[in-house]
Amino acid sequence: MLVFSETDLESYIHRQIPLSRAMGVRVLVATAEEVRLAVPLEPNLNHRKTVFGGSASACAILGCWSILFMRLVDYKPRPEVVIQANRLQYLRPIMCDFEVTTSPIEPDSWDAFARSLERKGRGRVNAHSYIESEGQRCCEFSGTFVALQKES
Amino acid sequence: MLVFSETDLESYIHRQIPLSRAMGVRVLVATAEEVRLAVPLEPNLNHRKTVFGGSASACAILGCWSILFMRLVDYKPRPEVVIQANRLQYLRPIMCDFEVTTSPIEPDSWDAFARSLERKGRGRVNAHSYIESEGQRCCEFSGTFVALQKES
Repeated sequence: MLVFSETDLESYIHRQIPLSRAMGVRVLVATAEEVRLAVPLEPNLNHRKTVFGGSASACAILGCWSILFMRLVDYKPRPEVVIQANRLQYLRPIMCDFEVTTSPIEPDSWDAFARSLERKGRGRVNAHSYIESEGQRCCEFSGTFVALQKES
Repeated sequence: MLVFSETDLESYIHRQIPLSRAMGVRVLVATAEEVRLAVPLEPNLNHRKTVFGGSASACAILGCWSILFMRLVDYKPRPEVVIQANRLQYLRPIMCDFEVTTSPIEPDSWDAFARSLERKGRGRVNAHSYIESEGQRCCEFSGTFVALQKES
């Protein structure tokens, strides 16, 4: 089993997705069960001195993409994960540094996805994340992702 | 009437929303009828060497926010516009530089919004944008925005 740590994931996304570096994203937790990202206010400010909705959205997507990456890290060949659709609710302004946390992926949904991936080399799965800042829930994100397994 | 040009909007968003600068966003068109943004591939790459979904999302939000800003630029006091919810469909990968274009805002929807803003100092309006690259439609975005008019 490949061990992929928080530091490994952080280096990987900073290298592969330069916007994650521009947003100052740090990886606090990276397991197959949960991903948690920490994001500073400063590079993500908007005209109101709160967090730009586009930053919140990008970080919520990155959280969900990361949990799927962590779950699939041992697959051979490793599937590529891309986003297909998403929804986001902005519940309140983010006034400060914030964290993105992924919700647990439902086992039934994961099993159907994993079976499809095995049989057809592609599968679709939903993932959810939320943003908290200063102890308050600020955003709720739902995304549909597609994984594609290319022959190595 | 305040004249706010493409250059003015570009300077404003680069100053107020540093992520727009990090994404390399340029303003091609900025009127009350349409906003068009040009975005380079390079700072927005992902692990597949296509555009990171989070960048696409952030730029689509920025386009819609900008058309509302342009429409409200002459209001006194000028309302603050914030996003409340959004949906995004990623139709195909963006392989190259891309453009965000806003769709026309429906006149009936705008009128109801403007009346609410005048009466209650706040209103809610939907805005839509899409992303094209190499002549193909890649993303479709819908957002609900709230405008708040503070006393000056």
